[in-house]
Amino acid sequence: MDRNGVMEGELEGKEMNKCVEEEVSHLALDIGGSLIKMVYFCVSNNCSVHQGILSSKGSCGLSNGNANCSVLKGKLHFLKFETTKINECLEFLSSKQFHRNGGYCHGDCASDKNIIKATGGGAFKFADLFKEKLGMTLDKVDEMDSLVAGANFLLKEASREAFTYMDGQKEYVQIDQKDLYPYLLVNIGSGVSMIKVDGDGKFERVSGTSVGGGTFLGLGKLLTKCKSFDELLELSHSGNNRVIDMLVGDIFGGMDYSKIGLASTAIASSFGKAVSEDKDLEDYRAEDVARSLLRMISNNIGQIAYLNALRFGLKRIFFGGFFIRGHAYTMDTISVAVNFWSKGEAKAMFLRHEGFLGALGAFMSYKEDGLTDLMAHHFVEQVPIKPSLCAGGSLNNSSILEDVNENGSIECTVQLSN
Amino acid sequence: MDRNGVMEGELEGKEMNKCVEEEVSHLALDIGGSLIKMVYFCVSNNCSVHQGILSSKGSCGLSNGNANCSVLKGKLHFLKFETTKINECLEFLSSKQFHRNGGYCHGDCASDKNIIKATGGGAFKFADLFKEKLGMTLDKVDEMDSLVAGANFLLKEASREAFTYMDGQKEYVQIDQKDLYPYLLVNIGSGVSMIKVDGDGKFERVSGTSVGGGTFLGLGKLLTKCKSFDELLELSHSGNNRVIDMLVGDIFGGMDYSKIGLASTAIASSFGKAVSEDKDLEDYRAEDVARSLLRMISNNIGQIAYLNALRFGLKRIFFGGFFIRGHAYTMDTISVAVNFWSKGEAKAMFLRHEGFLGALGAFMSYKEDGLTDLMAHHFVEQVPIKPSLCAGGSLNNSSILEDVNENGSIECTVQLSN
Repeated sequence: MDRNGVMEGELEGKEMNKCVEEEVSHLALDIGGSLIKMVYFCVSNNCSVHQGILSSKGSCGLSNGNANCSVLKGKLHFLKFETTKINECLEFLSSKQFHRNGGYCHGDCASDKNIIKATGGGAFKFADLFKEKLGMTLDKVDEMDSLVAGANFLLKEASREAFTYMDGQKEYVQIDQKDLYPYLLVNIGSGVSMIKVDGDGKFERVSGTSVGGGTFLGLGKLLTKCKSFDELLELSHSGNNRVIDMLVGDIFGGMDYSKIGLASTAIASSFGKAVSEDKDLEDYRAEDVARSLLRMISNNIGQIAYLNALRFGLKRIFFGGFFIRGHAYTMDTISVAVNFWSKGEAKAMFLRHEGFLGALGAFMSYKEDGLTDLMAHHFVEQVPIKPSLCAGGSLNNSSILEDVNENGSIECTVQLSN
Repeated sequence: MDRNGVMEGELEGKEMNKCVEEEVSHLALDIGGSLIKMVYFCVSNNCSVHQGILSSKGSCGLSNGNANCSVLKGKLHFLKFETTKINECLEFLSSKQFHRNGGYCHGDCASDKNIIKATGGGAFKFADLFKEKLGMTLDKVDEMDSLVAGANFLLKEASREAFTYMDGQKEYVQIDQKDLYPYLLVNIGSGVSMIKVDGDGKFERVSGTSVGGGTFLGLGKLLTKCKSFDELLELSHSGNNRVIDMLVGDIFGGMDYSKIGLASTAIASSFGKAVSEDKDLEDYRAEDVARSLLRMISNNIGQIAYLNALRFGLKRIFFGGFFIRGHAYTMDTISVAVNFWSKGEAKAMFLRHEGFLGALGAFMSYKEDGLTDLMAHHFVEQVPIKPSLCAGGSLNNSSILEDVNENGSIECTVQLSN
């Protein structure tokens, strides 16, 4: 672990419980329709506690330079579970003994024991389950509030968070904090939310679509018998959408429809070739089906996002959510869609911590600890040691990042130093 | 046949060639990715030919009141063929002996023999085939030009062409010709074109989507083994999309997400429930799959159409194309989407002759005959005698109109009287 740096990624494989012996202070959940995203902070045992640093046993409430408080030094962990396997999440929490030590105020904090911040629809749906199984109360944080807080934090504090992706080229974007707003945040989870962000806590959900990550995996499972999102993405990587999509050239006998700017290779009708071909599902390669599906959904989201950006005169569109997973083709398709429809005026940008905006936002809502301010001053990003293993931390052009360990967890760390 | 009326619909079943003995004057084609739409005009043998009426053997060129010309009296027929079965179309043309008598100028017109107006990508793709098999030249008319010409004609001349459809209620809309423009024309064929129309011949294709009728049938065939569009629509009629779609309530434990105005019954993720359920395609009812698919596509088109209408400040959106087929649920979903996203500001409207805009527009381009002017003065709509059998001629709320005969043809008639 780099003691000077502040953000690194590393894969722990089956060592998910490595942190068990470390002190856990804060934890937040984003319980979505398909995935539970978790962000938690571990105080490193081997880190010294300096003056001005929030003691792991100390009182809550902190401001910079306040000698009564201490700054936590440790790691921010990012994990995910499938929502249908919520028991794994409960077991993990149980193994961490959060339910004994208090949800976020580690040790003997008098109040708020056994309370954890949670966002997403599942914070409502599973509230009773958490209470019953772990004696924990989920302190609900609004989903849109959380997404925006998480995105704002990352865009302002992490220097290599946002990037463009086009024609296989990834380019980090330097965000000018004074010129960040307004922007459009497109969070692609099971469904898609589109939020116009005007400042800290200033936003409006202006649109969305039900054609999102849940559609990709839901339809993908029915069409290809793939069992997981990553398997389906992997499959799409070697597919050819032209086998099933009807292209402009298929209708025009190989010609462009140049008068309206449609190239012969443009998709005229997604899955349109399946209309006229006398083939059953089994006659198509699963790879090609997956590719057409990915392209249809990515294109559609890119288009609706652009139309909403246009509506409000927004030049910057940031895409987050677990649908993307640093997948080159997905990002490329979204970028091309935004570029095509905006005639080059708008650019799609992606976020390295794409899937954890909501969970991070919920985590940031532990304001009484001053954690937000603290992180904002000390969250300095560093190139991950094993970049391809860190969520969104792609530094190469490989199509699928090996960012998921066998337990389906992702881990990146944030080290807070004074 | 009503001799006073001017538009009627009747199903001829296998009697598609009934018109063979009548004189055919003009014919136009719209050859799309999935369907060939045909409009042709038959001069009725039992109609007298008046002065001021274009004689079936007479010279071309006509203006009102010009005693040198005559007005045709007869029927305008609407037919469709599957593009993959283009031979059926060629056989039909052959049986009509268009290729001997001249494409549109029946009889011994000196020029333009064996030429027929054609639009759609297939006018390019199949040009050689028509030449080779029938000796016919396809005179290509731009697709967008044709769609707009067809829509403008119908909206201005047919009194019961446009209607709204909401909550099972169909309401005809009285179009004020002076206040028709601008409007958004959404033509849903295999793919979808969205055209901002500002006047006769004044328009711009501003958007489109590849998620259209070809996607519905293409994906539908793969998922349900249905063979035809109408079979798939029929199936969807008895389906329940909630079985496979992930609703807001599924994520929120039955609750609304009221803060952002999403009811518990709103679709959060199309096909999203298939993600978590341990079911194969065979475990779902084809009806439910078809319903989810129809809703996903209709919703999506409605949303993108609305966003484009908003972009240009257009209050009126007319939907055409063969995707709709007077299907109640399709229209209802599109209407709800437009209503939802526009907060009641915009209204979706549908066209009775939805599928034939392009073919009709190509037909109208026989300007040298003065046919356009003629029709504009004499095309007076009448309630069809068998409304449920006429394209778009629904007067009841039945979900699927029996508008297709065994040969896949639709017929409506326009009788031109002086």
